[in-house]
Amino acid sequence: MVEPPIARLILDVDEDGGLGNYELKLNSYDLGVDIELADAVQRLRFEHPEVGAVLVESGKDRVFCAGANIGMLAEADHGLKVNFCKFTNETRIGIEEASEKSRQRYVAAINGTAAGGGYELALACDQILLIDDGSASVSLPEVPLLGVLPGTGGLTRLTDKRHVLRDRADVLCTTEEGIKGRRAVDWDLVDELVPRSRFRADVLERVTAAAADSDRPGDRRGIELFDLSRTIEGDRIGYENVSVLIDRKLRTASIMINGPGTSPPLQPAELSDLGASFWPLALARELDDVLLYLRLNEPTVGTLLFRTIGDPEMVEAHDQFLLENLDDWLVREIVLFIGRTWKRLDMTARTVVSLIETGSCFVGLLAELPLASDRVYMYEEKSESGPRLRLTAMNQGTLPMGNGLSRLATRFWGRPDALAAVEATMGKDLDAKTAVELGLATFAYDEVDWQDEIRLFLEERAAFSPDALTAMEANLRVAGPETLETKIFGRLTAWQNWVFYRPNASGPEGTLRSYGSGRRPQIDRKRT
Amino acid sequence: MVEPPIARLILDVDEDGGLGNYELKLNSYDLGVDIELADAVQRLRFEHPEVGAVLVESGKDRVFCAGANIGMLAEADHGLKVNFCKFTNETRIGIEEASEKSRQRYVAAINGTAAGGGYELALACDQILLIDDGSASVSLPEVPLLGVLPGTGGLTRLTDKRHVLRDRADVLCTTEEGIKGRRAVDWDLVDELVPRSRFRADVLERVTAAAADSDRPGDRRGIELFDLSRTIEGDRIGYENVSVLIDRKLRTASIMINGPGTSPPLQPAELSDLGASFWPLALARELDDVLLYLRLNEPTVGTLLFRTIGDPEMVEAHDQFLLENLDDWLVREIVLFIGRTWKRLDMTARTVVSLIETGSCFVGLLAELPLASDRVYMYEEKSESGPRLRLTAMNQGTLPMGNGLSRLATRFWGRPDALAAVEATMGKDLDAKTAVELGLATFAYDEVDWQDEIRLFLEERAAFSPDALTAMEANLRVAGPETLETKIFGRLTAWQNWVFYRPNASGPEGTLRSYGSGRRPQIDRKRT
Repeated sequence: MVEPPIARLILDVDEDGGLGNYELKLNSYDLGVDIELADAVQRLRFEHPEVGAVLVESGKDRVFCAGANIGMLAEADHGLKVNFCKFTNETRIGIEEASEKSRQRYVAAINGTAAGGGYELALACDQILLIDDGSASVSLPEVPLLGVLPGTGGLTRLTDKRHVLRDRADVLCTTEEGIKGRRAVDWDLVDELVPRSRFRADVLERVTAAAADSDRPGDRRGIELFDLSRTIEGDRIGYENVSVLIDRKLRTASIMINGPGTSPPLQPAELSDLGASFWPLALARELDDVLLYLRLNEPTVGTLLFRTIGDPEMVEAHDQFLLENLDDWLVREIVLFIGRTWKRLDMTARTVVSLIETGSCFVGLLAELPLASDRVYMYEEKSESGPRLRLTAMNQGTLPMGNGLSRLATRFWGRPDALAAVEATMGKDLDAKTAVELGLATFAYDEVDWQDEIRLFLEERAAFSPDALTAMEANLRVAGPETLETKIFGRLTAWQNWVFYRPNASGPEGTLRSYGSGRRPQIDRKRT
Repeated sequence: MVEPPIARLILDVDEDGGLGNYELKLNSYDLGVDIELADAVQRLRFEHPEVGAVLVESGKDRVFCAGANIGMLAEADHGLKVNFCKFTNETRIGIEEASEKSRQRYVAAINGTAAGGGYELALACDQILLIDDGSASVSLPEVPLLGVLPGTGGLTRLTDKRHVLRDRADVLCTTEEGIKGRRAVDWDLVDELVPRSRFRADVLERVTAAAADSDRPGDRRGIELFDLSRTIEGDRIGYENVSVLIDRKLRTASIMINGPGTSPPLQPAELSDLGASFWPLALARELDDVLLYLRLNEPTVGTLLFRTIGDPEMVEAHDQFLLENLDDWLVREIVLFIGRTWKRLDMTARTVVSLIETGSCFVGLLAELPLASDRVYMYEEKSESGPRLRLTAMNQGTLPMGNGLSRLATRFWGRPDALAAVEATMGKDLDAKTAVELGLATFAYDEVDWQDEIRLFLEERAAFSPDALTAMEANLRVAGPETLETKIFGRLTAWQNWVFYRPNASGPEGTLRSYGSGRRPQIDRKRT
C-alpha cells in the first residue's frame, strides 16, 4: 500500500496459497511467498521514486511472521532447501541494499510473534520496533525446535550487524520461546519497545521520519517492470536480449547476450519513456530471470557458457550514459539491479565460463561476465577483426561483489602491480594474447585448437563431482576480505547445507519430519 | 635432523606404519603420521632455539608427498574425516605461526610429486622450491580424482596467501596431473624452479639464508617437552594441573584447572631449569592434550564445563612474568603455545561453558576461558569471598583468535563504548553483578538458583541436535573480520564437511570408495 512518502508492505499470507501440501499458518512462508516479497521490494524501488521508507508489518493479529514453513522444509529435497535459502538470503540482502543504496528505508513493526525467518526478515530491516504487550517476542527457535540453523542470515546479522554479544546470541538461538520486552531492547535484538496503545502512532512516526531522510525524488515518475516475454521450446529459452541453449550431454547452458541495438538516450529524463525496455535494464532483468530459472528448473546443467554478440561501441555508450548519470535515481536503480544480477552469478552453484569470440562485445558492464567467470577462453585471431575485451570505469567498483570490492580488485587481490597494469588499459581494446598476459583471460586458442580445447574442457568438467565443484568454486571466487554478505553465503550457508544434509535433520526420523508428528526425532549424539 | 642454524624435517613414511588397513604409499599420511609431524614442529620450537629455519623435504626419490591417504579417507567415518582435517589444518597453521612468530622459517623442497595434502603442506611453508626435472609437479587432484576438496587449506592459501588468480587456481584444482616447470612459477604456485643439478645446493642456500634472518638465540638451551602423565580411570582423566570428569547422562566433561602452586621465577633464564613444568606451559600442554583426547575419543560429550581453583594473585603473577618477558624466546614460545591451545578451544565442536565459582581464579590467561565460552555463568555471593573475574593486559591481544583480534575485541566487535568500559576495569576484581552488567558473564545466580539453573541449561543443551549446535557455534563465535585462518575453518571446512557427507563422495558407490577399485563411482549430477 503506497502512501507517499511511505509504503506499507503488509504480510498477510493465505494459508492455502502454498506451492505444496502444507498450510501457510501464522504468516509462515514458502518459495512462492518469498518470490512475491522479492517482487514487491523490486517494484517499490522502480515504480515508486516517491517512497522513501517502507513499513514491514503484519496483516494478522498478534502474529508478525512465523518464518519458513516447516512442512515445506520437511517435504523439500536437499536441492530445494538450498535454493530456497539462497533466494530468501538474496532477497534479505536486497532489502538492506534498498535501505542503504536506494534510500528506501525499511522499518519492521513486530506486533506479536516474530519467529525464525520472521525475525530474520526484521533483522534485514533498518529499524525493528516491538510491541510491548507482555507476549510479543522475537525468537530464532530453529536449533531447539528443528535441529537446523537460522540460515537466512540470522546468526550472522546478530553478531555482525546488531553486534549482539555472542553468549546472548547463544541464549536467543537456544530458547524456543524467544525473548520479549525489556530484555529484547537491552540485548539489542530490537531497537525500541512500544506500548500497545501507542504502537500504530509511533510506528508511523518512525517510518515517516525515515522517509524524510531519503533523497528519492517525490516529483519523478516511476517505471513499470512489465512481465518479461520468455519462450521455452525444447532446450531453448528465449528473451529479447538473451537466448539460451541447453546441451544435455555436456550439461551446459549456452547463454548468448545481444548488445544494444540503439544508442542510449541523451538525458536521464528520457528513461521514463524507455522504461524497462532500456537495454541495460532489460538485459539485467532477463539474465536475472534466466539464472533463477536454471537454478530451480535445470539442476543437472553444470556449466553456464556466456557469449555476447554486438557492437562494442554501443555497449560502451550505454556504460558511459550510466556512469555519467549515477546521481539520477532511476539510473542508480538500474545500476543496482545490474549489480544484484551479477551477484547472483557470483553465487551460482554452477561453473561459470565466458567465451570471448569474434563479433562479441565484452565491454564494461558485459566485461563483468568474464570477471565473474571460473574460466575465460578467448579466441585468438591475427587479423584486426579478432575479438577484443575492453574494461571501463564500470569495472572499477560500480558493480561490487558481495565483499564490497569490484570483481577486478578481487581478482587481483594481493597483486597491486598486476591490478595497476590492467587499470592502465582502461578503455583500450585488448586482444587475446594481451588479455592472457594481463591475467584477464585464462587461455587463448586459435582456430586450430579452439573447438577441441573447449569441448575437452566441458567434457572433463561434466565428469567431475558436482558437489566438489560447487564447494571448490565457492572458495575460489572470494579472495580477500569478507563481509556480512559473504559470511552469510560462505560460512553460514555452507554449515546450513551440511546440517540440512545430515539425517539428524532430514532423515526419515530426523527433526524436520518429526516436527508436529508427536514422534521423538532419532538423533545421533556424536558431535563433529 | 638438526644442523644448526637449520633443521631438516624429512618425510619418509613407513608404508606399513598406518593406523588402519591401508598402505601409506608415496609418503601419503594418516592421522598417526600427522601427529608425528605436529610433534616435530612443536619440539623444534621448544627444544631448538638454535634453529632458525626448517627444511621440509622428502626421504624418497622423486616423491615429495602424496597427501592424505585415500584408503584411510575411504574407511574413515564422517567424524574421523572431519577431525583428521581439523587437526591437519591446525598443524599447518602452526607451521605458519612458527615461521612468522617463532621465527623458524619453513622452506619446502619439492623433489618430485607433491599432490593434494602434499602440496598443501608446501603451501603452509614460507618458500616452495620445485625441482626442474621435466616431471616434478604440484597438484591438487582432489576434485577430479576423488570428488572432495583440497580441504587442508589448499583452496584458501591459493587465493589468499599466494594470490593465485582464481581461474588459474581453478585450472590447477581440476587438473589431475597438476602443473610443472615454468608455468608453476609463472602462476606463483611455487617460488622457484631449480635445475636438478643444483637442487641440493640451492635448497640449502635458501634455508640457510632464511635462518640468518631469524632472531632465535643460538646460545640458549632448549627445554624438553617430556611426556605428560595422564591417568584415565573410568570417567575421570587426570593430569598435574587439570582433572576431568565425564557425566554420560548430561554428556558433559567438567574440566577443573588448578592455578599455580608457586610463584613464577624472577628471571627468564630460570625457565631453562623449570622447563616444561613451568605452570603456564604445563597447563597449556595438559589442556591441549585433553581437548584433543575428548575430540577424538569422546564424540558424545557435547559440552565442556570449565572451572578453576586457586589463588588469583598467583595467576596474575604468572601473567605479569610472561608479559614482562615477551622478548625472551622461550617466553614467546610459551605464550604462543597457550594461544594455540586457546584457539583449539575456539574451534572445538562442543559447547564451551565457564562456571565462575567461589575459590576460582579466572584471571588474565585463565580469563580467556570465559571469553572463549558460549555461555558464562557466575556465582553471585553478597560477601567479600564471592568469586571474581579479573582481566589483565594478557586479555588485550597477546593471545589472539584466528581472526587476529583478542577474544575481548571480538566479543565487543562493533561496540567500542562497551569495550572501553571493560578496558577501564583492567586489573580490577569484578563480582558477578558487575561482570553481567559489563557483558563479560551471561548470567549470575545466587545459591538459591545456581544448581538448578545450571542443570536445567545442561539438560536442555543435551537434548538439542549436535549438528545444529556445532554449526550455530561456528557462526556465533567469530564476529567481525575474517582471515585466511578463519576462512579455512569457517568457509572451507564447512563446505568440505558437506562434501564429505554427501553420498557422491562417501556413499558405498561414491568417489572415495570407488577410487582404485576399477568401478566407476555413482554420481548424482544435480548441482546445488
